[in-house]
Amino acid sequence: MNIPKKMKAVVLMGPSKVEVQDVETPVPGPQDVLINVQATAVCGSDVSLIAKPWEAQPPYGSFIIGHEYAGIVAAVGSTVDEFQVGDRVAVEASYGCGRCRNCRLGYYTACLNYGNRQRGHRANGFTTNGGFAQYAVNHINTVHKIPDSVEFNEAALITNLGCILYGFQTVGGYVVGDSVAVVGPGPLGLVSVGVARALCAGKIFLVGTRDSRLQMGKAMGADRLININQENAVEVIRRETQGMGADLVIESSGATTGPQMAVEMCKRMGKVLLVGYPEEPAPVNFSMMGMRNVHIFSVRGEGWANCGRGISLLSQGRISLKPLATHSFPLGQIEEAFRTFTERIGGAIKVIVHPNA
Amino acid sequence: MNIPKKMKAVVLMGPSKVEVQDVETPVPGPQDVLINVQATAVCGSDVSLIAKPWEAQPPYGSFIIGHEYAGIVAAVGSTVDEFQVGDRVAVEASYGCGRCRNCRLGYYTACLNYGNRQRGHRANGFTTNGGFAQYAVNHINTVHKIPDSVEFNEAALITNLGCILYGFQTVGGYVVGDSVAVVGPGPLGLVSVGVARALCAGKIFLVGTRDSRLQMGKAMGADRLININQENAVEVIRRETQGMGADLVIESSGATTGPQMAVEMCKRMGKVLLVGYPEEPAPVNFSMMGMRNVHIFSVRGEGWANCGRGISLLSQGRISLKPLATHSFPLGQIEEAFRTFTERIGGAIKVIVHPNA
Amino acid sequence: MNIPKKMKAVVLMGPSKVEVQDVETPVPGPQDVLINVQATAVCGSDVSLIAKPWEAQPPYGSFIIGHEYAGIVAAVGSTVDEFQVGDRVAVEASYGCGRCRNCRLGYYTACLNYGNRQRGHRANGFTTNGGFAQYAVNHINTVHKIPDSVEFNEAALITNLGCILYGFQTVGGYVVGDSVAVVGPGPLGLVSVGVARALCAGKIFLVGTRDSRLQMGKAMGADRLININQENAVEVIRRETQGMGADLVIESSGATTGPQMAVEMCKRMGKVLLVGYPEEPAPVNFSMMGMRNVHIFSVRGEGWANCGRGISLLSQGRISLKPLATHSFPLGQIEEAFRTFTERIGGAIKVIVHPNA
Amino acid sequence: MNIPKKMKAVVLMGPSKVEVQDVETPVPGPQDVLINVQATAVCGSDVSLIAKPWEAQPPYGSFIIGHEYAGIVAAVGSTVDEFQVGDRVAVEASYGCGRCRNCRLGYYTACLNYGNRQRGHRANGFTTNGGFAQYAVNHINTVHKIPDSVEFNEAALITNLGCILYGFQTVGGYVVGDSVAVVGPGPLGLVSVGVARALCAGKIFLVGTRDSRLQMGKAMGADRLININQENAVEVIRRETQGMGADLVIESSGATTGPQMAVEMCKRMGKVLLVGYPEEPAPVNFSMMGMRNVHIFSVRGEGWANCGRGISLLSQGRISLKPLATHSFPLGQIEEAFRTFTERIGGAIKVIVHPNA
Repeated sequence: MNIPKKMKAVVLMGPSKVEVQDVETPVPGPQDVLINVQATAVCGSDVSLIAKPWEAQPPYGSFIIGHEYAGIVAAVGSTVDEFQVGDRVAVEASYGCGRCRNCRLGYYTACLNYGNRQRGHRANGFTTNGGFAQYAVNHINTVHKIPDSVEFNEAALITNLGCILYGFQTVGGYVVGDSVAVVGPGPLGLVSVGVARALCAGKIFLVGTRDSRLQMGKAMGADRLININQENAVEVIRRETQGMGADLVIESSGATTGPQMAVEMCKRMGKVLLVGYPEEPAPVNFSMMGMRNVHIFSVRGEGWANCGRGISLLSQGRISLKPLATHSFPLGQIEEAFRTFTERIGGAIKVIVHPNA
Repeated sequence: MNIPKKMKAVVLMGPSKVEVQDVETPVPGPQDVLINVQATAVCGSDVSLIAKPWEAQPPYGSFIIGHEYAGIVAAVGSTVDEFQVGDRVAVEASYGCGRCRNCRLGYYTACLNYGNRQRGHRANGFTTNGGFAQYAVNHINTVHKIPDSVEFNEAALITNLGCILYGFQTVGGYVVGDSVAVVGPGPLGLVSVGVARALCAGKIFLVGTRDSRLQMGKAMGADRLININQENAVEVIRRETQGMGADLVIESSGATTGPQMAVEMCKRMGKVLLVGYPEEPAPVNFSMMGMRNVHIFSVRGEGWANCGRGISLLSQGRISLKPLATHSFPLGQIEEAFRTFTERIGGAIKVIVHPNA
Repeated sequence: MNIPKKMKAVVLMGPSKVEVQDVETPVPGPQDVLINVQATAVCGSDVSLIAKPWEAQPPYGSFIIGHEYAGIVAAVGSTVDEFQVGDRVAVEASYGCGRCRNCRLGYYTACLNYGNRQRGHRANGFTTNGGFAQYAVNHINTVHKIPDSVEFNEAALITNLGCILYGFQTVGGYVVGDSVAVVGPGPLGLVSVGVARALCAGKIFLVGTRDSRLQMGKAMGADRLININQENAVEVIRRETQGMGADLVIESSGATTGPQMAVEMCKRMGKVLLVGYPEEPAPVNFSMMGMRNVHIFSVRGEGWANCGRGISLLSQGRISLKPLATHSFPLGQIEEAFRTFTERIGGAIKVIVHPNA
Repeated sequence: MNIPKKMKAVVLMGPSKVEVQDVETPVPGPQDVLINVQATAVCGSDVSLIAKPWEAQPPYGSFIIGHEYAGIVAAVGSTVDEFQVGDRVAVEASYGCGRCRNCRLGYYTACLNYGNRQRGHRANGFTTNGGFAQYAVNHINTVHKIPDSVEFNEAALITNLGCILYGFQTVGGYVVGDSVAVVGPGPLGLVSVGVARALCAGKIFLVGTRDSRLQMGKAMGADRLININQENAVEVIRRETQGMGADLVIESSGATTGPQMAVEMCKRMGKVLLVGYPEEPAPVNFSMMGMRNVHIFSVRGEGWANCGRGISLLSQGRISLKPLATHSFPLGQIEEAFRTFTERIGGAIKVIVHPNA
């Protein structure tokens, strides 16, 4: 593959200021691959870190954003024989340092050296350059082959699936016949419904406020839609689970009322999984949590190699992320892409950018 | 053993009104034993349910309170050959219905038929009669033999140890070399320190406000005492764990600020265990929790047969509960016993009543 | 429902000697239901205990065999409000004593009082009367409602599904994208393939000797069939898993060579699950097992309430047991039913008896 | 620290042929430290691989053996700030590649690239040079600081403790009050007794044939010694556990009869952990294993960072490895060291070599 010396990339220049620039094409290290990026998705965390820098973020003027992408292997590092030029691949964001206690135990998305490049940590699109660019360098641990049957637009969303699978694994991973309540039909909530269905959960409730999104959840596998403008979600769930509450509640709304509502929906000895997080401190009745012996779990990133598992799900056709990819733009229209995402123009859920279109 | 037809018992007559009465000695059912009670401890939940009834509490005028007790088997039910008259025993509170989904899976302290006597659930001192009485009836599942080396006063406290062991098992049960921070040096906090030490945790921090209690924690095994009137606990813990935070934080203070402080003390991918619960909703920064991939666990009761494990710990001398049993009274002085406990008269930690003294 | 005083039942009279007799219809205890049996399946363990008594088996002349059955609730015990007359139900075999250490922890299929009726244990068709009869009594813990969409013939096989789900849960329960090798396409092997598929395993290998059975496995979801008369199964699996071996190997053949072959097929840090057991001691190269850090798990019965989970799977249409129910007979032809099963007449897999036909 | 260009090292020259040679002192890579070795222990696997090469072993004439050692940091790699020259340290053997699926999940002792140096795997003393030398290079993941209170002779044995802790963690890690039977009072068996005691197991049985070794086990914490020349171990254990069998059986003898005896000693739903492995295939009655719902676990290496946990145990004084270090020799007497170990001269358990003495 003929690799140009210069490429186009979206560089963060200042608060809420991005620019498409010509920059040097990066060179892969011994354990890396160079990816010719075909599709990169806009994520809520992109919006957040553009507005205000996150932990360990590279300086303005040099930082290429974007962490959800897929493409074609264009070159491989000196020790790499796991991949070949031409492989179709999708990526995840986090490469742990490999030397802290958490990484040694396999918790690389909770690397204790987060942002410490000297010690080897990288998080593309967060602490190192990402995928709103024609080329990107990834450590092979963050790269997954995808079959021809999976399109780049869908593959670019793999971290969403990997994150939710990681959440399911965090709470045990075995939900056959269990009742599951998902609160908030955003991208992660919809994927949660799809994963619960794929893993053979019993009754799946989806709680939200907009009927259009709830209907999408039905297509993903929800059994019972609850629009909280019309029904009391806690009461409905309790009534339709023989008074017990749900075995698993996945809070995806990120609302300040979310965690407490999740506890109220939950069965004694049930589990709450947070995948959306309110920005403000949120009050919870911990006495109720204790009386019910409920546990609250969180996820960060797409741990325990679950992106690879997610690609298997896509390959098997057990879940489809295509309905989420509602809009797409060329790299030159990056600002319109972001605006479409943040303002949900035309019912946008996930917006895809094509750097090499 | 000669069992009288009548016995003395503490009956709850109304809000905050207890009375020592002569009542009929209970008769054990087919799977029960009758216990001649030797020592019964006052617990914070006794104080709470005396003030205001708990879920499924028996009516005033008939309810014998008390759930932490030990004594001698005085009679056995028709099918019981696991115990013999004369056995020295300690009890736990919860006998699950055995027929709900949770009980079938071994979660009897989270019985879905809590308070439903027809379906078989009993919680002595909560939904059925308890141990502030000369005799009490217990299902054999709630009864544990104790060796001669363990005194009744100490044995009466076994649920405190069983509860904390259940908490440790809930968070994995394996803490060798891990850093543990305990917040709140009340009875459960002090026992948490002792269990962490017994299970070979690494550095154990104890956080509180009163030096006398902190010193007791040192005797139980704490390595580092932090009086939050003098030091910033979060900073100290972070600094003395190479910036990482504690592997496990046990929040036992029940303060409204407790859960959030626990999250702040906790390592990425660490665990928070709540064993004290604020009465008011408490605010938590769930974004921080998510960024650190921290989980929050709760315990109710003394599940998974951990009271039996606790008696083994006592027998081995790996932990001692004796320092907690600071005061004792005969049954007739039940009100003084409660006042001593609630007002912490003379530095009272746990107060023991002797129904047959 | 009008319940006759007498009913027809298959009584074990001696070694390999069964007889259809008129016996008294049983009466449910306080926590039991009486079931009007509609379908009872022949199991390999029936064949075994008819030939030679199992542990704690009731005496010849009084023992009604059969543990895989489904039917209609005809009466309920005095405390039962979980079921109503007319409910369509399927059963599992084991009711644990509820008072041993294992039962308290939820391991009721490994009850330490196995066969001890005084202490409450029952295993219908093993230590208490079973379901080759017009009526049977079951503790409600062993009874599961089935929806109208599930036929009795299929429901009678629920323990096969419950057992395999229990096996999957035993090895972690989360196999998304994992490679799974199943050895032996008998009923449990075929169900294993179906469960692996339902739970979104990656590549599923099925190893056997008869092409007809292998083809059934393909219909259940196997990706790669290996007839060991034509291919070396260990080599194929290793080659088609990039040299790693399978993440999970399920040995269902019961062959003496089975456990060792399973270890050879298994990945470093992989798991072997035994669901078939050779009668003779079987040699295993434990050095190889250790070098690979492989673990070997077993299952007995259908633990952890997995029959309920299984019914959810059937209701969702995520697996079908119908193809296994190849033959059926009225109760009067019990001997022909057994012969058809043991001699695999007409390719018999599971044979169903209809006691009330 | 002044580091010489040449050092003395034990080089494997051919089958059962070792030689002390002057070789070049190795240079640490970017993530390595150079260790001035103070104590190196002889292990059974050293004896085995000297006799006959193991998987991926370096060629004769260049391979420096030895994997159990401790010493002082003499130099650090370019990126290393976790260690400083002068730190007292102990090592473990395995550095996983960090890029295979197992390593990503934290299973670095089961690295799928075992022996593949290009991909980064190293196992000092097995596939890369080890510690029977004046200096050795270790990746920092394999290095642990030790406090002044721990002598080098004891620290050199840390992998034995790390391996057994890994075994305990593998079977759940929580054994408070559980009965534990250890078969075989060799080094790993004795350490198993010590760990069971440290983790507050209940009754600990130690089974062996030599009274002197059994007495050492008593000092490590065993409650009941069983000399199988005098008593039937299975019967004793069953009788002294109320007929149940042990919750956990650790087979450390490596005898061909070991695995089956372990299953026979084990409780229903109990666990067998293999830490010794017979060279020949060993027969097991898997039907018995299945009837009891027993699982068999293995360990390889000292996984999940348990050497670090082990050092915490040593620092706390909760276990002592000193009694195992029965003999020591200077490097020049390497052959006598090996002979003392293999022939158990003078009751030798572990033999230590001092490369810089």
